[in-house]
Amino acid sequence: MDTNETVPSAPRPRNSAATKELLLSAATAEFADYGLAGARIDRIAERAGANKRLLYAYFGDKDQLFEAVLQREIGKLARETPLADGDLVAYAAARFDFMLAHPETARLAAWRRFERDGHWSEAEVESYRVKVDAVAAAQREGRLDASLPAVDLFAIVLRITESWLDAPPALTAVSGPHSRSGKRLREHRAALLEAVRRVTAPEPPKTARAPEHSAPR
Amino acid sequence: MDTNETVPSAPRPRNSAATKELLLSAATAEFADYGLAGARIDRIAERAGANKRLLYAYFGDKDQLFEAVLQREIGKLARETPLADGDLVAYAAARFDFMLAHPETARLAAWRRFERDGHWSEAEVESYRVKVDAVAAAQREGRLDASLPAVDLFAIVLRITESWLDAPPALTAVSGPHSRSGKRLREHRAALLEAVRRVTAPEPPKTARAPEHSAPR
Repeated sequence: MDTNETVPSAPRPRNSAATKELLLSAATAEFADYGLAGARIDRIAERAGANKRLLYAYFGDKDQLFEAVLQREIGKLARETPLADGDLVAYAAARFDFMLAHPETARLAAWRRFERDGHWSEAEVESYRVKVDAVAAAQREGRLDASLPAVDLFAIVLRITESWLDAPPALTAVSGPHSRSGKRLREHRAALLEAVRRVTAPEPPKTARAPEHSAPR
Repeated sequence: MDTNETVPSAPRPRNSAATKELLLSAATAEFADYGLAGARIDRIAERAGANKRLLYAYFGDKDQLFEAVLQREIGKLARETPLADGDLVAYAAARFDFMLAHPETARLAAWRRFERDGHWSEAEVESYRVKVDAVAAAQREGRLDASLPAVDLFAIVLRITESWLDAPPALTAVSGPHSRSGKRLREHRAALLEAVRRVTAPEPPKTARAPEHSAPR
């Protein structure tokens, strides 16, 4: 446990941290499957093998539980995909790998956008602001292309990392039945990292491509 | 009316095309707002100022109406965003403009992915296949970069076109309260087109950037 947020409080069963973890994991799976409206507290308690009164005692109502699950997932994602020194290629690689390993995170985020339209926390805005600032700093220091606004560079890279995992199913179907095979995913990962490199590399495209470099017809 | 799909059939009220159009428009708005499960036939009839028995007569059940709405939106999108000669920059511009003018299309597509997971039509796969083939042809003819797989190049460009309009709200909030102002949208549009240019331009990045071109520290 690397959390340091424990505060002296009322006595609890000594396995409360483990029980909470079980409940949150069960709630994560349930909300990812059914969304906020469709999720059922009964089923979450059953998935966790716990009493549903404990759920209410620990997390409050279903809305609050959904929020707790979301903030936990967002926290994990933020910890595992830092944007050190504004290195957007490393960030894209880490984010692709995280999304591949944690499909429930994308589903939860999408449910929230549907079901709680326009709702977000100041902590999230702040977390994005830190990343956009890191991009801006890297632009000033010549490590990233400086001709596009930092917020656009970041937003574009963010979407590029999802270009296969979150593509329309009818598009990935074009690549055949193995659109999620290890080989296809490795190939796509290499392609997306190269795309991020091209978008972000610090070489200002000052002019249109010179005619002598254009490819033969 | 530029449609030529009218087929001789049983006699109908002579305003049936107009009524159908009204009903489809109302259904589009309703499904975009509430999704398939949440939409109500009563409300659609009311929005259209029509009798709900007509809805059933023309479109069948709610599932079939949802599918009719979706295919109509997908058809519009396909017609208004052609990929002529594999020109991905022009395609990205057209798609951004379409998504901006038709936010309901993205919402419908997202609802479907949630509510009808993995369901898509062969016509959609075919429509994507035509586009990926156009990219592959442009790669062979030297008009697009040929070092990335055609399907990845297309999937990446597709997502780049949505990088602001479909960004997490907490990210667009970083740019302040005017994240949807005309000025901000124009700025982002220019950035995304430049990003597409960089990703797709037919100049193979054979080597790492030469040291003499790196920006000053």
